Amino acid sequence: MEEVRNKQVVLKDYVNGFPKESDMLLKSSAMINLKLSEGSKAVLVKNLYLSCDPYIRERMTKTEGSYFEPFTPGSPIAGLGVAKVIDSGHLNFEIGDLVWGQTNWEEYSIIDNPETLIKIQHTDVPLSYYTGILGMPGMTAYAGFYEICSPKKGDYVYVSSASGAVGQLVGQFAKLFGCYVVGSAGTTEKVDLLKNKLGFDDAFNYKEEKCLDTALKRYFPNGIDIYFDNVGGKMLDAVLLNMRLNGRIAACGMVSQYNEQGDGVRNLFNIITKSVRMQGFHVTQYYHMYPKYLEMIMPLIKEGTICYIEDIAKGLENAPGAFVGLFSGRNVGKQVVEVSCE
Amino acid sequence: MEEVRNKQVVLKDYVNGFPKESDMLLKSSAMINLKLSEGSKAVLVKNLYLSCDPYIRERMTKTEGSYFEPFTPGSPIAGLGVAKVIDSGHLNFEIGDLVWGQTNWEEYSIIDNPETLIKIQHTDVPLSYYTGILGMPGMTAYAGFYEICSPKKGDYVYVSSASGAVGQLVGQFAKLFGCYVVGSAGTTEKVDLLKNKLGFDDAFNYKEEKCLDTALKRYFPNGIDIYFDNVGGKMLDAVLLNMRLNGRIAACGMVSQYNEQGDGVRNLFNIITKSVRMQGFHVTQYYHMYPKYLEMIMPLIKEGTICYIEDIAKGLENAPGAFVGLFSGRNVGKQVVEVSCE
Repeated sequence: MEEVRNKQVVLKDYVNGFPKESDMLLKSSAMINLKLSEGSKAVLVKNLYLSCDPYIRERMTKTEGSYFEPFTPGSPIAGLGVAKVIDSGHLNFEIGDLVWGQTNWEEYSIIDNPETLIKIQHTDVPLSYYTGILGMPGMTAYAGFYEICSPKKGDYVYVSSASGAVGQLVGQFAKLFGCYVVGSAGTTEKVDLLKNKLGFDDAFNYKEEKCLDTALKRYFPNGIDIYFDNVGGKMLDAVLLNMRLNGRIAACGMVSQYNEQGDGVRNLFNIITKSVRMQGFHVTQYYHMYPKYLEMIMPLIKEGTICYIEDIAKGLENAPGAFVGLFSGRNVGKQVVEVSCE
Repeated sequence: MEEVRNKQVVLKDYVNGFPKESDMLLKSSAMINLKLSEGSKAVLVKNLYLSCDPYIRERMTKTEGSYFEPFTPGSPIAGLGVAKVIDSGHLNFEIGDLVWGQTNWEEYSIIDNPETLIKIQHTDVPLSYYTGILGMPGMTAYAGFYEICSPKKGDYVYVSSASGAVGQLVGQFAKLFGCYVVGSAGTTEKVDLLKNKLGFDDAFNYKEEKCLDTALKRYFPNGIDIYFDNVGGKMLDAVLLNMRLNGRIAACGMVSQYNEQGDGVRNLFNIITKSVRMQGFHVTQYYHMYPKYLEMIMPLIKEGTICYIEDIAKGLENAPGAFVGLFSGRNVGKQVVEVSCE
């Protein structure tokens, strides 16, 4: 029976406002047995990559009737990740299998409901991709764009947080589909990536715009058919003024609203005057399409038609900083934490 | 050539905030020839019933890029109505025909684009119904409920402005469909009508509720599947907190927003967490379904399965007061102005 120390990132206490690194604690005192106990139906994994996603912030607050189950202070943060099976009590998994799915922010995790894990079949791409383009954000972009946005060739498409985990894919999907695509991001570096690496038709730094409505009118003189909304708040309000008749808004994220409540959205009347459809969605309702998505995306990755930008923080100890950075836009591309590369 | 005085209700000047009776003027000085000039392709009508609709308020303001074409001060208010053809230069219409469609707030109108008029075939119902259940509000309720709300038997349906021109029909359609329906209105009298005459399962006076969220939780302990929104603003915000997974919001009107800008809607994040679809629509996109609607609704009216409450102000001189009353909820049911009963 091999017992080892299991470094963990735990939530100290519930969070108000913007999360800080000090809301989390790197704990080195926990021990874990690297063999499952006799008769266990769980799977024991070594975590390789952890995914920093904005929705995790939601679980750091205890709200009455909240949609996301709140974390328990003192326990490790839970999230999606890529891991290697080192012991298995479940028929579907063998030692050495690579998997992605729900795990914890720690070196080793016991997964009590391994049915939720997906076995990784293709290993000729970076394994970290299973936290991004080949994982939840990829499926979010795929379902969000093709199923929710009802795209048509020639549509004017606007993507906010466009260099982020989901946005960079939505933009590339929309281009492949024959749309005109503009993205926004919060630094010059990101805007350059959008225009020069990710193939957006145009891009702008929203932090440099005094008036978002004016900016949108400059980039979309004919209006917007599709808005893929990752931010909500003021940006959504400005977009509403610029939607075209029968426009679609995919409400994917509202990162502007997670830490502080803004002013409220005032221009919803445009939903009526422009016959706009605004639709929220959960990627979990589309996971049945994952095999179909892989079939589409794997060749596009391998032939270089689609690229994916990642921002990899090395070491579990850097997970709190990487996570906190999401809310100031410090990350360039999908934020990943590498716990171990083997 | 018979020339007569043509009483008109004209807009004095553009309106700010809530419209007042004094924003309109009854003008008795205009003259009109009751014969069209030789070669005219227009239709001359005598107006019988005029429809008071909240959207008319939008045209009383001159806003840059506004969806509704602003009125011209000094000209009569334009709106929907029921009229009798007294002269016709158009092949489709003969003297004596009854029609409904776009006309003006005056005794006689020359309709320059008579293609937009619909000839009335069924005259064994009150003619005023063509401003309501058999006109634009009827089609709005029909398209809005059946096409936009995607109803399912057993759905929990909430209707605001539920005794209004559209709401009273949406509630009755939803009941016929097998939904559980609650409506809100602004007086005890209206709440009684909803429960005792219009067949709503329950109803409440929103003006008597301190907290709309609490009220909705009382009437919908299991949440709301469908919200038919006629008001927007604070009510929409409270509803968002109470939507069920995969809920639908038909954005039909936002009467709370027409005269003054409120606080903004703060709870849109629920659109994501509950996978809600919010859809604005224009009845004009559904007029091709009008014959199908008539086929459904006429028997329901005649056998008394569906009823329709109207509030008829007699005399063109009472049109300004009737219109203004819409925004304080003075009308009980569809607000109509009877210009002439023959």
